[in-house]
Amino acid sequence: MKKYHVAVVGATNLLGQECLKILEKRNFPTASLRILSTDTAAGKRVFINHREMQVYEPSSQSFEYVNYAFFLEGPQTSVHFAHLAVQAGAVVVDTSSAFRDDPWVPMVVPEVNLQDARKHKGIIATPSNSVIPLAMVLHPLNRKNRIKRVVVTNFHSVSGNGTPAMEELTTQSKMVLEGKAAVPHMYPHQIAFNLLPEVDVFMDDGYTKEEWKIANETRKVMHSDNLLVAATAVRVPVFTGNSAAVSIEFANSMSREDARNILAEAPGVKVQDDPAVSLYPQPWSAQGSDEVFVGRLRKDASSDNGILLWLATDNLRKGCALNAIQIAEAMIRDGATA
Amino acid sequence: MKKYHVAVVGATNLLGQECLKILEKRNFPTASLRILSTDTAAGKRVFINHREMQVYEPSSQSFEYVNYAFFLEGPQTSVHFAHLAVQAGAVVVDTSSAFRDDPWVPMVVPEVNLQDARKHKGIIATPSNSVIPLAMVLHPLNRKNRIKRVVVTNFHSVSGNGTPAMEELTTQSKMVLEGKAAVPHMYPHQIAFNLLPEVDVFMDDGYTKEEWKIANETRKVMHSDNLLVAATAVRVPVFTGNSAAVSIEFANSMSREDARNILAEAPGVKVQDDPAVSLYPQPWSAQGSDEVFVGRLRKDASSDNGILLWLATDNLRKGCALNAIQIAEAMIRDGATA
Repeated sequence: MKKYHVAVVGATNLLGQECLKILEKRNFPTASLRILSTDTAAGKRVFINHREMQVYEPSSQSFEYVNYAFFLEGPQTSVHFAHLAVQAGAVVVDTSSAFRDDPWVPMVVPEVNLQDARKHKGIIATPSNSVIPLAMVLHPLNRKNRIKRVVVTNFHSVSGNGTPAMEELTTQSKMVLEGKAAVPHMYPHQIAFNLLPEVDVFMDDGYTKEEWKIANETRKVMHSDNLLVAATAVRVPVFTGNSAAVSIEFANSMSREDARNILAEAPGVKVQDDPAVSLYPQPWSAQGSDEVFVGRLRKDASSDNGILLWLATDNLRKGCALNAIQIAEAMIRDGATA
Repeated sequence: MKKYHVAVVGATNLLGQECLKILEKRNFPTASLRILSTDTAAGKRVFINHREMQVYEPSSQSFEYVNYAFFLEGPQTSVHFAHLAVQAGAVVVDTSSAFRDDPWVPMVVPEVNLQDARKHKGIIATPSNSVIPLAMVLHPLNRKNRIKRVVVTNFHSVSGNGTPAMEELTTQSKMVLEGKAAVPHMYPHQIAFNLLPEVDVFMDDGYTKEEWKIANETRKVMHSDNLLVAATAVRVPVFTGNSAAVSIEFANSMSREDARNILAEAPGVKVQDDPAVSLYPQPWSAQGSDEVFVGRLRKDASSDNGILLWLATDNLRKGCALNAIQIAEAMIRDGATA
């Protein structure tokens, strides 16, 4: 079996560690693994998955011989180094927002639009972590019965903002439980035992950039330019696992049973829907899993052709690192590159 | 100024204590205060608001001479004792679900349908704690531009389930922060750092009773039989303060500015909507306040005549005890009774 030289950029942050774990667990055909980071870990030897590894600062030399480079830092790092990796001959899978709006960069969820990955010019983007599960649930439904409109309330865990945000939720929760005042650093207000309807920056029309991304990236991934999407994004005091309450309006009538049957067949989707035993998706239990969990399926009481549902996913895994790795795996299966 | 004999049933639980605090703070014209409870506090002397008071078990004698009886226990207590209170000549304001579906019992939010209270036959119900803020926001908008459809995702704090639920969130949070497994008692699964899309019992169509109440009680309070409502109710790890993400479709176009102006004038509603300084409603900051806070106003990108907004309220106060007291205050102002 052919093996590949792999670089992981951002290997010491929360997403990078998840990426390394998943590469190992899935036996990604790795000939060599180069660990890169722009943060303070660069230049040091660190323990990752119980193994001591050298962390390098990315440079123009970093990507020599690399076949697949996974970028798991912010957009600045991707803007600086992705093109160097491409010039060196690597296929870049970028999880940041740097290239998502670039018409030359395909943005891919393998279960939804793998065909787009095949047209890449060196860089393939993954959508934002809330778009991946949403598109995976909407796409198979849309194929059977065109979706006209989606109203989604998204519940974002703090791990989307990395380790400092996890620490902030921990510290603040302890302080509140001790009866002390919680001091915000990462977020504009207390996140412990609170809800903040602010994810990413605000735009002039009152939407946040995250809400705008949920609409635009979902349309792009699904090739549904006319899909109407209204999103509300709320940061919740949950460590890992993004959830969403979704109202879907179809062109034609859709029964609860049909929706359930379609989703039961959908790749990467797992239906958890048995109210009698309180079985439904939860962010806590989605943590560490690869699937998009979907449940609470019911007819939308306010719309003739509507369905309501609830989903949860591990935002670090299928929401990000796993999706990136699955893109590379699919390209390898295709024999399309390297 | 005329004063009134008052009974508070459930005075030792979370809502009852809130009720006693509010009665005192608002200088409710109280000639006498009878403290009743069916729980273990009955028969004891307890400290409430720094004052030692005798707690009585409710009986047929409890309501003699009482003008206003506030019921803040579950529906069982209301079913058992409300009629005794009415027979004794009291006006009952019941915060439980016992009589909400009774066509003879008005269900009242003073800012929305005070006129219904005037037709009471002894009992006046308050709607469930999520319906009160929703109706207060929808009603003034609906008067200017008829609302056709509402899709609401409701974020329920644990205090709606009383002190044991507050204790469960506290205990579980501590355990998780110590790296231990959290054991669920009150809720079917862990609530700490998690989300549970289950509020009240499930019905055959897949909705929970809470979701059904949000639709039906909103219609009843607003006298809008044709209003379409789809609700999703999610229990969140927040102690006090209910929030909601609401999508509203009007019969005609509604601008963001018009919606803001209408809500700025609405009684009991406070607009908190300045994204530039991260000003928006939060359950943590709504706690202890009387108002329904509303913000994140924006055009619904998926609907020509739609508006999206976000609201938060103290579910124990305006969501329940305060609303009950305001009903009695309005009746007193009316001179309609006693």
